Amino acid sequence: MSREAAFIAALRGIATHPAARGLADDCAVLEIGGETLILTHDAMAEGVHFLPGQDAADVAWKLVASNLSDLAAKGAEPLGVLLGYQFGPDDARFLAGLEEVLVHFGVPLLGGDTISATGPQVLGLTALGRATHRPVPARSGARPGDAIWITGPVGAAMLGFEALRDATAADSAAFRRPLARLADGRALAPLVSAMMDVSDGLLLDASRMARASGVSFAIDSMAVPIAAPEARRAEALRWGEDYQLLFTLPEGAEPPITAFQIGTASASAEAPVVLDGLPLTEAKGLGYEHS
Amino acid sequence: MSREAAFIAALRGIATHPAARGLADDCAVLEIGGETLILTHDAMAEGVHFLPGQDAADVAWKLVASNLSDLAAKGAEPLGVLLGYQFGPDDARFLAGLEEVLVHFGVPLLGGDTISATGPQVLGLTALGRATHRPVPARSGARPGDAIWITGPVGAAMLGFEALRDATAADSAAFRRPLARLADGRALAPLVSAMMDVSDGLLLDASRMARASGVSFAIDSMAVPIAAPEARRAEALRWGEDYQLLFTLPEGAEPPITAFQIGTASASAEAPVVLDGLPLTEAKGLGYEHS
Repeated sequence: MSREAAFIAALRGIATHPAARGLADDCAVLEIGGETLILTHDAMAEGVHFLPGQDAADVAWKLVASNLSDLAAKGAEPLGVLLGYQFGPDDARFLAGLEEVLVHFGVPLLGGDTISATGPQVLGLTALGRATHRPVPARSGARPGDAIWITGPVGAAMLGFEALRDATAADSAAFRRPLARLADGRALAPLVSAMMDVSDGLLLDASRMARASGVSFAIDSMAVPIAAPEARRAEALRWGEDYQLLFTLPEGAEPPITAFQIGTASASAEAPVVLDGLPLTEAKGLGYEHS
Repeated sequence: MSREAAFIAALRGIATHPAARGLADDCAVLEIGGETLILTHDAMAEGVHFLPGQDAADVAWKLVASNLSDLAAKGAEPLGVLLGYQFGPDDARFLAGLEEVLVHFGVPLLGGDTISATGPQVLGLTALGRATHRPVPARSGARPGDAIWITGPVGAAMLGFEALRDATAADSAAFRRPLARLADGRALAPLVSAMMDVSDGLLLDASRMARASGVSFAIDSMAVPIAAPEARRAEALRWGEDYQLLFTLPEGAEPPITAFQIGTASASAEAPVVLDGLPLTEAKGLGYEHS
């Protein structure tokens, strides 16, 4: 077991509160006063999650949008965010991007903390939302026979990353300014058997959902919409950060929003993901790869 | 204006949501489902808030206890915490301390995130609680004529810090394992006109409360209980991290718990804090000083 996996397993051991589902399922779900709160926290480090020279406004945008995307996958309405901010190379640009993303999604900044420290900049964000539908969608609810859907194409962030890295004329917005699909998540929440956002790559996140649900996902690679040249389909299926919603619906059910069916869940114990008839394993490149 | 002050002023400009009082008053206060949520977030960095060689279990303890102390000052009952954890020099000790402090205060770990990054370890914690009394105590409520109280002695953390730094036989627990006065905060919340925790030094925090309330605090230094030799009284009044609760009560009111009256609020515009008849300014050593 990796150092990270061992630590997270130990954290889960500590998180024994019946209301605490957070460490097992990304967001925490908490009942209070007749409402269901959804909480999520992400940390991002310079040199790992963003580049030292990257526009701090884009860093702020992604920090907020990626957390709101977690709320979207729960069908939650955001109530606000709290920011843990280590002063960095361009605080003014960070503030500009923070204001832009909060205004864009209509989400208030509730509080936070600022620190000065040496070393790479580390940022944290907590997002709080209220569930609009109960039970709250989880990644563990997919059942054999369910259809597997995605809200839109993958691969756009990959192309955007390359445009930014190589300073080409191509549009890098999909990588720099991802969108949290909050309205889609709310529309889907009452209907889905399982839902999560695709942040680490479609195949890796699909395998997580399949494992959590105890099913196998048969995915037809050609059915997955991609925003990249056909020659790069395999990469697009593994690249992350597009923040589409991946969800399952009972057989025959139609989603109330634009979405694309990419496969079917089965009771097979073969592998979490079977792509075009071939079982995928982590060794075979299931995961998130920045090419 | 310092870089930090300018950034925080800008953040306050962004935090325009009517429910958002967080950046002006430490904790965010949010009404939902007939309940009042209290949220706070603190970040801590190796080399700034803790020493590189410090026991990671103590770091975990203080990270949690300092956030719970913010909830205590609101009279809140903790609902849980979310952790932003950058892997560090001793993850196993961190986990041990985390479990100890959560069990001690009976608070669940709801979720969080882990990251690997180079550079000094940066940690973040969000604590969530529910108010047990409304209106929620704020630091801005002190009125002329109110008596100023503190729940216990200051200076213990100072001595604990020195014991740890100098590796003496003296007890360092007050510095390593501070307590959040949650029960005291709940008992006081219905009665106080203002309340906050003393984390940055009694005189500095008292000046913040006085400023926020638009009053002046006349403090009698000899009335302040100290857990240090008499010769070090002046330092004890300026050292932080004891996490006592500082609060004001209407004249004549008695606190329902053990507490010590240290002064009186007045409408004087002289200075936020007048110590033994002398107005204190920041230039005169109001603040937090690790001697």
